[in-house]
Amino acid sequence: MGINLINFLSSKSKNKKMNEFQDLDHIDGLSISTVSANLYKNNRDDLVMFYFRNGANYASLYTQSKIVSENIKWNLTQKSKKIFSLVINARNANCFTGKQGYKSLERIAETLAEKLSDKQKKDEDNPIKIKSKEIMFGCTGTIGETFPEENIKVKIPELVEKIKYTQNKYIWMKAALGIMTTDTQPKMAMEFCEIGNSRIKIFGVAKGSGMIEPNMATTLAYIFTDADLPNDVLKKLLNKNISNTFNAITCDGDTSTNDMVSIFSTCEAKHPKIENINDEKIKKFDEALNKVLLNLAKRVVSDGEGASKFITINVKNCKTESDAKKISFSVANSPLVKTAIAGEDPNWGRIIMAIGKAGVQINLEKISIKFGDLIIVQNGKIYSGYKEEESAEYMKNDNIDISIDVSSGSKNFTSFTMDLTKKYIEINSDYRS
Amino acid sequence: MGINLINFLSSKSKNKKMNEFQDLDHIDGLSISTVSANLYKNNRDDLVMFYFRNGANYASLYTQSKIVSENIKWNLTQKSKKIFSLVINARNANCFTGKQGYKSLERIAETLAEKLSDKQKKDEDNPIKIKSKEIMFGCTGTIGETFPEENIKVKIPELVEKIKYTQNKYIWMKAALGIMTTDTQPKMAMEFCEIGNSRIKIFGVAKGSGMIEPNMATTLAYIFTDADLPNDVLKKLLNKNISNTFNAITCDGDTSTNDMVSIFSTCEAKHPKIENINDEKIKKFDEALNKVLLNLAKRVVSDGEGASKFITINVKNCKTESDAKKISFSVANSPLVKTAIAGEDPNWGRIIMAIGKAGVQINLEKISIKFGDLIIVQNGKIYSGYKEEESAEYMKNDNIDISIDVSSGSKNFTSFTMDLTKKYIEINSDYRS
Repeated sequence: MGINLINFLSSKSKNKKMNEFQDLDHIDGLSISTVSANLYKNNRDDLVMFYFRNGANYASLYTQSKIVSENIKWNLTQKSKKIFSLVINARNANCFTGKQGYKSLERIAETLAEKLSDKQKKDEDNPIKIKSKEIMFGCTGTIGETFPEENIKVKIPELVEKIKYTQNKYIWMKAALGIMTTDTQPKMAMEFCEIGNSRIKIFGVAKGSGMIEPNMATTLAYIFTDADLPNDVLKKLLNKNISNTFNAITCDGDTSTNDMVSIFSTCEAKHPKIENINDEKIKKFDEALNKVLLNLAKRVVSDGEGASKFITINVKNCKTESDAKKISFSVANSPLVKTAIAGEDPNWGRIIMAIGKAGVQINLEKISIKFGDLIIVQNGKIYSGYKEEESAEYMKNDNIDISIDVSSGSKNFTSFTMDLTKKYIEINSDYRS
Repeated sequence: MGINLINFLSSKSKNKKMNEFQDLDHIDGLSISTVSANLYKNNRDDLVMFYFRNGANYASLYTQSKIVSENIKWNLTQKSKKIFSLVINARNANCFTGKQGYKSLERIAETLAEKLSDKQKKDEDNPIKIKSKEIMFGCTGTIGETFPEENIKVKIPELVEKIKYTQNKYIWMKAALGIMTTDTQPKMAMEFCEIGNSRIKIFGVAKGSGMIEPNMATTLAYIFTDADLPNDVLKKLLNKNISNTFNAITCDGDTSTNDMVSIFSTCEAKHPKIENINDEKIKKFDEALNKVLLNLAKRVVSDGEGASKFITINVKNCKTESDAKKISFSVANSPLVKTAIAGEDPNWGRIIMAIGKAGVQINLEKISIKFGDLIIVQNGKIYSGYKEEESAEYMKNDNIDISIDVSSGSKNFTSFTMDLTKKYIEINSDYRS
């Protein structure tokens, strides 16, 4: 396990909710193994494998950065219908590593495909010959350093040896810890739902790091389900549910070179066939998937580097959702708003400033602002009952809710962010943090 | 003078260049007076008046924020051909102050117009009756607080009494200090040039504050010249020269509710008539104006809150200037790049990340990056002669130059920024800083 679990268990997030973990357990058709490839040179687990013994349907969304890591290039060439393994390493982003990085993955995939095929021969009645193209990679860490091919390759046999066909909460915790970089908390979420009469599991792990502002941290999120859903349905579900979850914690036009959100379905559950996303029978799954993604996304924000407060910015009653989103992110991404909140200063003037610079035409005389339930601005004026000491008291909370009502339409958007603290600077100005 | 000058004289900017001041002196037709309206409750000068006894031609550019301060609304209604006075107050932004803020300016302008008209009667052979609409305002400070009309109005007689018809370096310094908010250094610049055979003066003062990143600080910059230029020529010159000066230190889509850059010409110099901006005779003036604006803009960046390093980001050989600008600002505005520089870490991976998220299509294999004269990346690969210790040594400089050559065209853009330090957080998370 290494030191990470110990560190984690002795630390506490300021946000109590985020210290609580659900007990993820077994998903048919999925195995998890973790090892230390000594990428951090401290024996913590830093290499995690998800293995699908019968293959998994899948869908994946990637960073919109114009520079993408070598593992994303690799993943994008996948045309196979099923994926048999997802391998994630921390510490090295495999970005700007050029051919060395890409060829490394090729060779690691070949080695792993061979070992997994051997494992199939040993364990399965109808062994499958796994191809290197049926393996996906997630990488996160420093950009521009030589990709540690040997460190990883030498650990492949151990990763495969460690495969167990039932999973429990400990192995999920180890996986969630193994993919962390500067995260201080592992991120897991779980929901159950029904498709037809079948009980379906949706489990997920994620990592954040860095500031969950635009353009910043590498976010990795991996969702696993036993539902039997075709690739195109998975793709549509992921696209649909990303906008108010992971894309509500990061501005458009982002992001890191390595961002990746994927869903894998082992198809082991028996339920009526689902062929399109409008099928009524998928509705509960759809909702549960949104909950898992939102739970993970909030955990990523809550653990943003140096975060001391979790901030929710509700923008209501705009003409378009795009307007609401612009205003919401403009506030969420304003260093002046975020530092004021860090200082527990109810400096609503900075919120006005951030609304103004969002570039959305608004009628100032209709605007209202609330901190939690406290009315601050009403119809473009300071609220007659505004009491500075009340709002100052409110700012002491760990969770700050800012509501902005623009009163010019009916579209809403909610974004999530955290405050900007000295701790953030400390973490990021350390030499090669 | 108050405590500000004393504070200033005992402080030193880390950036030595910015501790040096030119000795601005007299411009015909311009008077300066400063007083303390006790807006800061510590007797520092916080109210500054520029008075043009014969009126001044002028042009002015304002914030693109959708929420603008009441003084900008006032200024935008100016249709008069000449301006007789520019009055600037610090401490209160007169934004989100509604009718109270606007009406206050109206009454202050009326009082001032009356006093200045009396002054004209006393001092001039052909006294002019100055109208309140011939007065402009600059405001900077906290948003949403009641505008201190009475404090200011009561000081109008003193401002007018203090008018002198010759100016020296001390009064310029007092003016530059009087408009400061969280600035630690006054900002002045001066150039001389010729129009025809006449020697022309171009003087300027500015204030920054806050982080000179997108959306943030109120920037005020006021340029004064004795040239005899019509309003439309001034407007075109200002528009032309703002893009690679004040708009190179702030991202598009910005900015504060109060930003304002203005030029005033007293028309006292005798030179050939200039009727359009393409006139060869205006070329030297054009260049000198650019120098004054750039000098002031750099001083604003250099004094950004908490800044310890001045960063120049040259982006070269893009397809369009807009592409070059996007990449340049993407690097300049990246908290991860700015914190790395604060930590003197030559973490070029973060620059790659910032280039990638700029949204510009680039050929990674053509990209080159330099820190000063040190080649870091060449043709998309780490430079064969790259030595980490050399670049680490380079990062210890006060001035960091980052060059990014995209090799896909011939258009360039240079932006200026500073690093992101703990001090910035400290300043901005202090209660109502």
